[in-house]
Amino acid sequence: MRTSIATVCLAGTLVEKLHACAEAGFDGIEIMDADLTAAYESPEEIRALCDRLGLTIDLFQPLRDFEGVDDATLADNLRRAKAKFEVMRRLGASMILLCSNVGTATISDRTTTANQLGMLADLAAEYSIDIAYEALAWGRYVDDYRDAWELVRLADRPNLGVCLDSFHVLSRGHDPAAIERIDADKLFFLQLADAPDMDLDVLSWSRHHRLFPGEGDFDLTRFLSHMLRAGYRGPLSLEVFNDTFRQTDAKRTAAHALRSLRWLFDRSAALNGWDDQQLAPPQPPRAIDFVEIAGEDLSAVEATLQQLGFAFGGRHRTKPVRLWQAGAARIILNEQRRTKDARLSGLGVEVEDAGAAAGRAHAIGAPAVFRRSSAGEYDLRGVEAPDGTEVAWNSRSAGDSWLPEFVGGAEDDSTASSLHGVVDHLNIAYPWQEFDEAVLFFRSVLALDAEPVAELPGPRGLVRSQVMRTPDGAVRLAMNLAPPTAPLQPRHIAIRVDDAVAAARAARGRGLPFLPIPSNYYDDLRARFGLEHAALDELRELDLLYDRDEQGAFVHFYTPTIDGLFFEIVERRGTYDGYGAASTPVRFAAQLHHTGRYTDDREQGEAARR
Amino acid sequence: MRTSIATVCLAGTLVEKLHACAEAGFDGIEIMDADLTAAYESPEEIRALCDRLGLTIDLFQPLRDFEGVDDATLADNLRRAKAKFEVMRRLGASMILLCSNVGTATISDRTTTANQLGMLADLAAEYSIDIAYEALAWGRYVDDYRDAWELVRLADRPNLGVCLDSFHVLSRGHDPAAIERIDADKLFFLQLADAPDMDLDVLSWSRHHRLFPGEGDFDLTRFLSHMLRAGYRGPLSLEVFNDTFRQTDAKRTAAHALRSLRWLFDRSAALNGWDDQQLAPPQPPRAIDFVEIAGEDLSAVEATLQQLGFAFGGRHRTKPVRLWQAGAARIILNEQRRTKDARLSGLGVEVEDAGAAAGRAHAIGAPAVFRRSSAGEYDLRGVEAPDGTEVAWNSRSAGDSWLPEFVGGAEDDSTASSLHGVVDHLNIAYPWQEFDEAVLFFRSVLALDAEPVAELPGPRGLVRSQVMRTPDGAVRLAMNLAPPTAPLQPRHIAIRVDDAVAAARAARGRGLPFLPIPSNYYDDLRARFGLEHAALDELRELDLLYDRDEQGAFVHFYTPTIDGLFFEIVERRGTYDGYGAASTPVRFAAQLHHTGRYTDDREQGEAARR
Repeated sequence: MRTSIATVCLAGTLVEKLHACAEAGFDGIEIMDADLTAAYESPEEIRALCDRLGLTIDLFQPLRDFEGVDDATLADNLRRAKAKFEVMRRLGASMILLCSNVGTATISDRTTTANQLGMLADLAAEYSIDIAYEALAWGRYVDDYRDAWELVRLADRPNLGVCLDSFHVLSRGHDPAAIERIDADKLFFLQLADAPDMDLDVLSWSRHHRLFPGEGDFDLTRFLSHMLRAGYRGPLSLEVFNDTFRQTDAKRTAAHALRSLRWLFDRSAALNGWDDQQLAPPQPPRAIDFVEIAGEDLSAVEATLQQLGFAFGGRHRTKPVRLWQAGAARIILNEQRRTKDARLSGLGVEVEDAGAAAGRAHAIGAPAVFRRSSAGEYDLRGVEAPDGTEVAWNSRSAGDSWLPEFVGGAEDDSTASSLHGVVDHLNIAYPWQEFDEAVLFFRSVLALDAEPVAELPGPRGLVRSQVMRTPDGAVRLAMNLAPPTAPLQPRHIAIRVDDAVAAARAARGRGLPFLPIPSNYYDDLRARFGLEHAALDELRELDLLYDRDEQGAFVHFYTPTIDGLFFEIVERRGTYDGYGAASTPVRFAAQLHHTGRYTDDREQGEAARR
Repeated sequence: MRTSIATVCLAGTLVEKLHACAEAGFDGIEIMDADLTAAYESPEEIRALCDRLGLTIDLFQPLRDFEGVDDATLADNLRRAKAKFEVMRRLGASMILLCSNVGTATISDRTTTANQLGMLADLAAEYSIDIAYEALAWGRYVDDYRDAWELVRLADRPNLGVCLDSFHVLSRGHDPAAIERIDADKLFFLQLADAPDMDLDVLSWSRHHRLFPGEGDFDLTRFLSHMLRAGYRGPLSLEVFNDTFRQTDAKRTAAHALRSLRWLFDRSAALNGWDDQQLAPPQPPRAIDFVEIAGEDLSAVEATLQQLGFAFGGRHRTKPVRLWQAGAARIILNEQRRTKDARLSGLGVEVEDAGAAAGRAHAIGAPAVFRRSSAGEYDLRGVEAPDGTEVAWNSRSAGDSWLPEFVGGAEDDSTASSLHGVVDHLNIAYPWQEFDEAVLFFRSVLALDAEPVAELPGPRGLVRSQVMRTPDGAVRLAMNLAPPTAPLQPRHIAIRVDDAVAAARAARGRGLPFLPIPSNYYDDLRARFGLEHAALDELRELDLLYDRDEQGAFVHFYTPTIDGLFFEIVERRGTYDGYGAASTPVRFAAQLHHTGRYTDDREQGEAARR
């Protein structure tokens, strides 16, 4: 599989973009005409730089508004094309993208249009240039790839073929199956883009909201499979117009973009049953092995865990690392790190084959994590998530792997705690510019699925919440995206227990301060659910939050925030599968009111900008 | 006119919002249920605070999903409503907004639905509460205000009326004329929101993109006129769900919101011919009187003006202020200010009646500017734009007013310069959170119209460009909105001359360094327009930019950036009416490349955040 990317996906000057693409490991690029126009380097210099960087120029793009026009316009369009072919000769580019006419077409007749395409192809042939004709979703007469192919077939020139762009096909709901009816040698180019489902005009949707494969709602696996089965052997190229990627670090975006292609190709190879081209299969984790919190001094976190009912599980034999347990919920406190504030720094998950999961992640391009381990210690293989959180896989149970490295804890690890639970979910705040990358990471590397996005009003703006999870709910990560100007939300670890009311009483008995919930919230609960006075009084007394739907109920409470971190204890009654979203605005407001902070360790930088 | 605003328009806690509304000068507020729920203050405490602040609680909102349901659901809904009525009694609120059912309605029959509304009204009557029923644009059976009114009419209860929300009416394209057929005493409440024209699902459009009146594309003047003619005498209230206002300073948003209502009411009063309720009529300026640049040391700006061909017009008699002129283009350099960097700080415009224009601006709520003036000096009345730029009106010509205060310039002011021109346009960068406010300011205070928005790709993201202008083009302000993470664009002053090529040659002869334009740009010009070699060579030699359309052509060039400011010389051939937008991405890239800065004096703060 050869990989390519359009320069329009990235921020910066053309030279910066080329360096970013090469560094990420792309084989080639599509050069956007406007990027070349704004560059101080001549086409010859860009060509030489691409050579030096090992990048092929796979496509020059775009030529617009060419076909279906009157004779005078055609003559001028041929002149325009010729000037661009001359630039391409200097650039060493041998294929140009022709978008179907949006602005100047007045003739819908196929024979005329095909003839005009043929004239363009003949002119291009003098320069040894191929034309890849693409139906734009908003083309005036040609807005369907099947029509573009029909015109190419009619024109019948060896250097005229089609370009398929997943956005233009899938945004219109066109069935990609007919790609397989196109002659393989006429499939000149392939542009891939994902997008969220939106009910927006297709031009605005395309120009602002495209995403890299795996970040949106399009079925690109099927799309690419059709393309590959049809015999396409050119590069898989990305063309993603996105307001965020246009303004954020080009190197980071390029690395992230390449991971999306590797993931997508693997998925399509799997769908086609091409065993020799697949990576190890994705393994949705079956449980959370541990959660790690790092910081210079974690005594405040430790005190909170103790008050919640966690039991001390021992010190690590060789490192300043301690374990706390509450049944199957294992939290590792790591004071090796030189970060001042406590932060959620690691996540271990159980899978069938940890080596295969790690190998797959590395093949996709996730950065490997190297943990210093001493002889005789269990080696966990892991990678780094976009925010720096380390994710590690384990094929064995904790007790059968790393747990014995901790000594001096309560005798029987799993029963010494007065609290018994499992990690229900983690909630990780992401800054806006890393959010899409994180969706891709958790989908491609941890094999999690995306739930529909929720938008939750907070006192400093709407918070976008995206849960990534296994189908059975054993692993759930909620990613919160705060507005660009707001400080990052604190992160939290939610522990699921059988009886949250009892857990709250016991924790209060041990002196745990709770996040205080406003009394008005309970008046609202009464209105919404008609709870009995006794039940309501108990919730109010214990600062518990409550939700209910047809599947069951959710009872939960929060600890105060320590640095950028807090804990939640949750109880799921019946088959309740949500996260109490209706109460979340109250939690946001309470945290802002009570902690004065609403943030994690990035607060300093964020605050400075206001 | 009584004014009101929904708490959901603003960021912060409920108490912060109430203070902001009172400080801005609103008469009342709508309290959003969720804002009260998240507040630590009891309903009685909120009531007392509103009393103390002089705010009436005009509406409690919303009650949802009530009507058109089966009997069991109805019973539960009445129980829900009763619980909210009890909260309202504690709050001292006597009107509740009922939105048409979106989620639970199963019965479309009008008689049943009207009966259920009647039952709600009877329950509310026990609490002396009025119900204002509103058709949501996405209501299941009731999505048109005419249907809501029909149901209210059928239910026939004294305490049941309709609430009209401009968004729900105009987003669906419903004709607001039928408002006048509603009984005046049944028009219980009015919510106003503007919005940009968008082809987006109406729910997302409503939840994220509403704007204050005067900032979008809705004809609210006509809408409000119908409401007033129908006999509505309640408050004009704003309900604007907007992602930006939800996260930015509540006090600033509230002040800005109130200005939008004052402007709108004036426009509707004018449409209805109610002379006694109108402000002085808007006066689109007939010319630009002067542009002012402020800074501690403006010698570099002065050198550039001299090289461009401006003539020194004298020093002010009493202040460290100097004048430079090029024909009718007058630039005042003001070194009174203690800002380190040069910045575009003031704009004078000529109108028929400066006193009336200033009076109108003050009545709308624009902050007045007090200029220290010595005895015998001409007094210019002005206001401050959202970014701090001072705008001043003059009814006389410069020569007949303030110009004589400058002494020691070239003999004949208007002919001493070798450059002759007028100010064609100003380009002012706005940070994202002030952009909408600026649109309203220039529309309401300077009587400028908004051109359609353009989006221009730059190396650090898309730049949104909105031109505000007089119909004749005598005054044109281009506002550029950079992405939140990008530094602000530099601002610039464009001078229109008869012959930009000659002006460029002359300026180059005087040693002016130009913003160098990449050679590739001229290859692209050749492709686009088929210019002759000689013409192209001249453009290339002089770093001139070029555009052409059916109306004419545009030739222009830029000076390098001094601090956050640069100059442009433009020539409009034929009736060309644009700004060379096709070349703008090249200019962005060139400025980033050459100045290393791309910014104004806010750069420090902006850079710190990255």
